[in-house]
Amino acid sequence: MNGAQALLRTLVDGGVDVCFANPGTSEMHFVAALDAVPEMRAVLSLFEGTVTGAADGYGRMADRPAATLLHLGPGMANGLANLHNARRAHTPMINVIGDHARYHKGFDAPLESDIDALTGWLHGWSRTSKASEEIGADAAAAIAAAMQPPGQLANLVLPADVSWSDGGVVGEQVEPVAAQPVEDDRVAEIAKIVRSGEPVVLLLGHGTTREQGLRAASRIAVATGVKLFAETFPARIERGAGLPTIERLGYLAEQVQWQLSETKHLVLVGAKSPVSFFAYPGKPSELVPDGCQVHVLSVLGEDGTGALEHLADLVAADARPVLQEATRPGVPSGALTPQNWTEVIGALLPDGAIVSDEANTSGLMIPMTTAGAPRHDVLTLTGGAIGQGLPVAVGAAVAAPDRPVVCLQADGSAMYTASALWTMAREGLDVTTVLLNNRAYAILRMELSRVGATEAGPRAQQLLDLSGPDLDFVSMSNGMGVPASRATTAEELADQFAKALAEPGPHLIEAMVPPLL
Amino acid sequence: MNGAQALLRTLVDGGVDVCFANPGTSEMHFVAALDAVPEMRAVLSLFEGTVTGAADGYGRMADRPAATLLHLGPGMANGLANLHNARRAHTPMINVIGDHARYHKGFDAPLESDIDALTGWLHGWSRTSKASEEIGADAAAAIAAAMQPPGQLANLVLPADVSWSDGGVVGEQVEPVAAQPVEDDRVAEIAKIVRSGEPVVLLLGHGTTREQGLRAASRIAVATGVKLFAETFPARIERGAGLPTIERLGYLAEQVQWQLSETKHLVLVGAKSPVSFFAYPGKPSELVPDGCQVHVLSVLGEDGTGALEHLADLVAADARPVLQEATRPGVPSGALTPQNWTEVIGALLPDGAIVSDEANTSGLMIPMTTAGAPRHDVLTLTGGAIGQGLPVAVGAAVAAPDRPVVCLQADGSAMYTASALWTMAREGLDVTTVLLNNRAYAILRMELSRVGATEAGPRAQQLLDLSGPDLDFVSMSNGMGVPASRATTAEELADQFAKALAEPGPHLIEAMVPPLL
Repeated sequence: MNGAQALLRTLVDGGVDVCFANPGTSEMHFVAALDAVPEMRAVLSLFEGTVTGAADGYGRMADRPAATLLHLGPGMANGLANLHNARRAHTPMINVIGDHARYHKGFDAPLESDIDALTGWLHGWSRTSKASEEIGADAAAAIAAAMQPPGQLANLVLPADVSWSDGGVVGEQVEPVAAQPVEDDRVAEIAKIVRSGEPVVLLLGHGTTREQGLRAASRIAVATGVKLFAETFPARIERGAGLPTIERLGYLAEQVQWQLSETKHLVLVGAKSPVSFFAYPGKPSELVPDGCQVHVLSVLGEDGTGALEHLADLVAADARPVLQEATRPGVPSGALTPQNWTEVIGALLPDGAIVSDEANTSGLMIPMTTAGAPRHDVLTLTGGAIGQGLPVAVGAAVAAPDRPVVCLQADGSAMYTASALWTMAREGLDVTTVLLNNRAYAILRMELSRVGATEAGPRAQQLLDLSGPDLDFVSMSNGMGVPASRATTAEELADQFAKALAEPGPHLIEAMVPPLL
Repeated sequence: MNGAQALLRTLVDGGVDVCFANPGTSEMHFVAALDAVPEMRAVLSLFEGTVTGAADGYGRMADRPAATLLHLGPGMANGLANLHNARRAHTPMINVIGDHARYHKGFDAPLESDIDALTGWLHGWSRTSKASEEIGADAAAAIAAAMQPPGQLANLVLPADVSWSDGGVVGEQVEPVAAQPVEDDRVAEIAKIVRSGEPVVLLLGHGTTREQGLRAASRIAVATGVKLFAETFPARIERGAGLPTIERLGYLAEQVQWQLSETKHLVLVGAKSPVSFFAYPGKPSELVPDGCQVHVLSVLGEDGTGALEHLADLVAADARPVLQEATRPGVPSGALTPQNWTEVIGALLPDGAIVSDEANTSGLMIPMTTAGAPRHDVLTLTGGAIGQGLPVAVGAAVAAPDRPVVCLQADGSAMYTASALWTMAREGLDVTTVLLNNRAYAILRMELSRVGATEAGPRAQQLLDLSGPDLDFVSMSNGMGVPASRATTAEELADQFAKALAEPGPHLIEAMVPPLL
């Protein structure tokens, strides 16, 4: 058994049986080992941004890591932006980064680079495997690291000679660490605060925006009158009819300030204290109102959901959560607008959908129009690095093959990782992409004035304009094997969306939506 | 004058008047300053891999830097792979990396990351600007750093508050450093070696594969019988009728060993001693034959071309260079093959063309079939990070608007940075892309057996196969505004290639070429 085979066998034994891959020469023994370890499903992508984004989507839905296979430092570099998003999402993931044979490193061959600098940038767990005898144990350690609450990136550098050398030993699985329970004292302290009668906000962060946490939080709100918010960009939030509906903090600092105004106590549940996404001249970075105290119910790595349930038992023993009623907008008509396309989605979103949401400015109304749709999960752009939506949809579809995946994707961001469409076609994934084409970096038009760049003229505006030439996503999608159509009216979008959902496999609908601003 | 305006004004004053850009919120004041400093041409790309690759192509052809504008760490991350190639090409380039306002850094906002880790990965010059009063001087220092022989990446981190704050001061230009002349003694020593009568190879590296260096090297070869080779992947090599033809070292270790067999003295002229691109089990990393001594005529940063001329004056005072005769293959006929498509290019390559070559395995015969074509420049994949060809073509076309650019682009690699086509259309660049579609990672099929991965079976092979679904580059290209056609025979390719060259603006021809193996 060579090192690569030991690695794959250990991964599969540990429940890691999907690998999103874009290999090169130094990874050929890993590739060859796929025939020796057929339980591992390898999913090819044409660009590493899709590889890593797909593993992120997979981890968010499966609650266990997928592996990635990346070609040396430059291949990893191509995947970094979506690894940044995955890091912010605390997604469990194992990145297998192929490297030159150890004895070859010193020769500074063309693809040589300092991989440790890149893994360092990600702040995750990292190890370079030293021998084929050790790679199995390294892989087991990587699985445990990835699964360590709240979840993280585990980067395993695999030198080619470790991969090809005989002597591989399958690693013994490491018992995973459970999330730390929150101490009773802390829960009791927070109980006093939520009962204080002063304005309190509970801010729900990682892991607490799923059914169990939402129900507990809703009970607390019912019993005590505290307000609930979810963090701005949750890795995964469960919502829809039958679940408590929770509003997310806004993207814009002004929205957050409005949402938190008058708050005297902000209680963090696995969330960070809210800060502005960007800095703006003369505006604060911290968004906690003056005079508001910040408290912590749970930090990352602690069992925030358990803490919410404990708190609910203390302060809301008899309360029942407020559950969202089933209610949908009607199918609208007329030319597409930033509002009515979201009503189409709200009207037709299928039961059990997974929504990969990178609609950006076009999607501002989506939370409202889908609130009463059948139960669904939403995966958001956690780290702000655009080009996440299509890859995350790939991974979610691989993780949950029985659920329909809906990708709401802005045009500018789509162009970062558009080749994810090809992987959808290749794997026959049931993903319906609604591509919002507003022919602009619309968010930057808004930001240009928000940062006070009042001196901007036509040359600046030109740099935010995606027309000239117009991008034709129907052609591009067809070119990558995903059947596509174009909608300019709400009726067309509804018709095409319903048909796409009814058919298996991937579809793309280019929705010609004017910019919000 | 704010910091951004001082930055742009300093760049323009220093001859840096092109900026390839993909901005975000933190770069909005830089964008706004484009109206205040209209001499700066901003070229928008839809992905940072195109931004950085284009700046690489520009720098190689212009011999002075373009600027890039990148959005924080994640935006820079997306551009890293082509920056790696540019680093290996020693291309002068100035990367302006926007960052959060300095006071915002500590809040760990979603897009926050350790930019220094990324600039460190690139081994170039780096500086974070501290104040709007200093950004002008920082920019001047960046220009000088980028131009320092042999050329390098200069990374200038621009915090948003430095960009937007008043008090900007235009920087005083810094006198550029010239390449160091090579000492007479060293030239004299090498003169002895080339006259020794023993088998000598001169290996021409960075900067010496242009007319002046080639002519000197050819004189030396004529007078002394030494063999000449260029390094495997030159940043830029001038060739064609009227210039000395020089063979490049091969990509495969076996080729290099064959090319260097019997050599007793290897003389490096701004080149590195040859090493294998990858490690292979049981094969050496170093490719210098046993018993061959390695000598250095010039190192990077020294004037290698001057040293060659000096050497020629010593050992070949009366010799004249051997110049390539004008000779072209005839236009072939029949279904496209890995050979005949290169004959089409050789038959029709226009005078003064710039060839961006990322044809990979499909392009093996290109050096032979174009050797006697009219004079042209070839830009190659210096760092091995694929996805360079289309972006480098963009930059070359911006740098040399009067010259036809021909991009020879393999399919798998094209999918890394395909959106470069949109920038070609937007800017009306005269680039003719021949997209070699062999529906495979053909190079990896070859490498799979070369690394001895004999256990590979159908599951491994599947991961190297780009069919299912077939990529349709005509559709994709049309979708990005570049008129496209498909050729399946040599006649069709010749017809379409000639027409594309005759028309201004970008064109793409998808050439359906079977894999080499």
